Amino acid sequence: MPTQTSPGTGTTEAAKRARVAATALATVTRAAKDAALHAMADALVARTPEILTANEADLTAGRENGLSAAILDRLALTEERVAGIADALRQMAALADPVGEVVRGGTLPNGLELRQIRVPFGVVGIIYEGRPNVTVDAAGICLKSGNAALLRGSSSAIHSNTALVAVLRDAVAGAGLPADAVQLLDASSRDSVKELMRARGLVDVLIPRGGASLIQAVVEESTVPVIETGVGNCHVYVDAAADLDKALAIVLNSKTQRLSTCNTAESLLVHADVAEAFLPRVLAALHEAGVTVHGSPEVAAYSADVVPATEDDFGTEYLSADISAAVVDSLDAAVAHISRYGTQHTEAIVTESVTAAREFVARIDSAAVMVNASTRFTDGGEFGFGAEIGISTQKLHARGPMGLPELTSTKYVVTGDGHLRS
Amino acid sequence: MPTQTSPGTGTTEAAKRARVAATALATVTRAAKDAALHAMADALVARTPEILTANEADLTAGRENGLSAAILDRLALTEERVAGIADALRQMAALADPVGEVVRGGTLPNGLELRQIRVPFGVVGIIYEGRPNVTVDAAGICLKSGNAALLRGSSSAIHSNTALVAVLRDAVAGAGLPADAVQLLDASSRDSVKELMRARGLVDVLIPRGGASLIQAVVEESTVPVIETGVGNCHVYVDAAADLDKALAIVLNSKTQRLSTCNTAESLLVHADVAEAFLPRVLAALHEAGVTVHGSPEVAAYSADVVPATEDDFGTEYLSADISAAVVDSLDAAVAHISRYGTQHTEAIVTESVTAAREFVARIDSAAVMVNASTRFTDGGEFGFGAEIGISTQKLHARGPMGLPELTSTKYVVTGDGHLRS
Repeated sequence: MPTQTSPGTGTTEAAKRARVAATALATVTRAAKDAALHAMADALVARTPEILTANEADLTAGRENGLSAAILDRLALTEERVAGIADALRQMAALADPVGEVVRGGTLPNGLELRQIRVPFGVVGIIYEGRPNVTVDAAGICLKSGNAALLRGSSSAIHSNTALVAVLRDAVAGAGLPADAVQLLDASSRDSVKELMRARGLVDVLIPRGGASLIQAVVEESTVPVIETGVGNCHVYVDAAADLDKALAIVLNSKTQRLSTCNTAESLLVHADVAEAFLPRVLAALHEAGVTVHGSPEVAAYSADVVPATEDDFGTEYLSADISAAVVDSLDAAVAHISRYGTQHTEAIVTESVTAAREFVARIDSAAVMVNASTRFTDGGEFGFGAEIGISTQKLHARGPMGLPELTSTKYVVTGDGHLRS
Repeated sequence: MPTQTSPGTGTTEAAKRARVAATALATVTRAAKDAALHAMADALVARTPEILTANEADLTAGRENGLSAAILDRLALTEERVAGIADALRQMAALADPVGEVVRGGTLPNGLELRQIRVPFGVVGIIYEGRPNVTVDAAGICLKSGNAALLRGSSSAIHSNTALVAVLRDAVAGAGLPADAVQLLDASSRDSVKELMRARGLVDVLIPRGGASLIQAVVEESTVPVIETGVGNCHVYVDAAADLDKALAIVLNSKTQRLSTCNTAESLLVHADVAEAFLPRVLAALHEAGVTVHGSPEVAAYSADVVPATEDDFGTEYLSADISAAVVDSLDAAVAHISRYGTQHTEAIVTESVTAAREFVARIDSAAVMVNASTRFTDGGEFGFGAEIGISTQKLHARGPMGLPELTSTKYVVTGDGHLRS
């Protein structure tokens, strides 16, 4: 396979080993993969003490480095959490194997049998920050879909991730599959990320998960195909024909059910016809919930708690107890506003009008459009996928929550009997 | 929509206009698109004289610049050729519209209705060389799939393409759709290509069609997602259990039915067990057909006409009356050779062994795998797609021949009744 990578270094060598592992994994049965997943789960539970010891090293270093309580909590593992992570692997094993699925097929006029079948990508690179369970989830979803994983976690979880990957590799090897199905890349410097991004030919796809600047850098510089799990400046639009009780509940749930996920609502649009009836209610409820509203003058007129919004506010993904808000004259204006400021993640309309719902759904160009439902539903688990590697905001290959099929490619298999093209 | 493009220049301005057109096209009915395609076809026929006049200017310039007869022939339009190009647009209209297809859907446990539907990409950039009919084919397939096209053709066809696009734009506008559904970019310098590659946010996908160096440059430098229509170093592997009559016909058809297409076979592998029976026959036949065989020593032993192959030969896409050839000891060796030298386009096995066919199909990691059929079948028309924009050799988004569905993305539509996430 032609590559354009630099002469062998840590990441490049790991990618080569991953390629060898991927070649083997491509033809392994589901039963073998599931057995490995169960072995990984059992090993995590059996070796919990060693994992927690490593985790304690990260927490100690984290405290010394002044990490916030919230971040330390996300970093922390407990016996219960490890058991939960292990259980997720067992659930992964129970899911259907996407590999081998016949996506489409038929017999051509000349008698050739045509089948388009799912195949693993091969080598999947995942760059992520924060929680150590992502290490295990990513390894599991990659293995299940027949891919070899190159995991580049954050330096703050370096000991935890090292221990976790050691346990996983032993288990995979013990189950008869290549240990290089799971590899951890050096997280102590940005070099591993740079090499990963240039390893076209060795790495088939890169999935960066994390802050906007990391994703932006990868998207711009990578020659390896990328799936962008982008920013979620999600909108809730309360239409002229909205049921205002539903609207209130949906706005609150979309904003406050979890404050800092990508599918959290960051912007509220209210049709002028219901502004007077709705804004006092929703502003009071948001205030009560501790959310600061950054509003246009029309919005600010309804409450002294509203902070005047700047242009930037409408394009901001706060990931905090903040939301921008504006009044719009029409559905058309709502769509235009979303088109201008949105990040093509999730947009919701609350309306009882069939026509309005239909138009909004047709015109919104985002990964997900909700009608009378919280933006928080854009999630692989909620969609019934069983597993999710991230939520793509790009248009190529995968859009929205990415489950097992999204970690596969396809190939055509054509079977003839000496067929020649004329 | 956030962009990272340079301040307004020709290509950037065109991309902005394309974005406006794409927004309108996304919600246009199939009937309206088909009417526009028919209008385009009729206009091409009605305005043939003006098109041929422009074409003559390109041919004159081409002769002055010393273009070969073969290239001039590919450049040349005639009344008959224009009629054929127009007819292809009418056939496009007859195809099913991929937009709006429900890819999957169902009702979730909590009662939410989930639908994943096809939507246009939006703005599609196509960089291509040579034949002017690609201008029309590309405009047609983009329009049919609801996309606005930015076409960057070759400088050698600049007058033909300009005339064709003028005719198409008039027809599209006359049919009530935005003329900016079709735009021609400046082909007189590489600047338009560079701008196109950096227009992330304005352009949704780039499809470079042409020589390996063009595609390589785009793949490496583009921040706009790319679909790589790569090199085809296609193999035919004649297995130990091959029917040698079928094998002979398949090798000849794969190599000589068309010499310079991406699905033309460039490499022959013969299992050692049938080398003695097969090589004399196939070498004689290839020689008779005017094909030079670049063979390993084992192959060269069978004929004085065989040119000794270098390492490079096995990785070469000749696009001429040349083919590389080697003897392999096993199917495993054939797979290893293909994995090492192939470009993941099309590989064929000729065998009567079910086991060998199954193993080859499972292990080959290419866009298409043929069993007892010519490599020349990797083609959208042959696959029954009705239209094809190119053959992708990458794994992300589309792999193999790309038809209408491959020019779409998807979005999720979730319909509830006040549903909140708990």
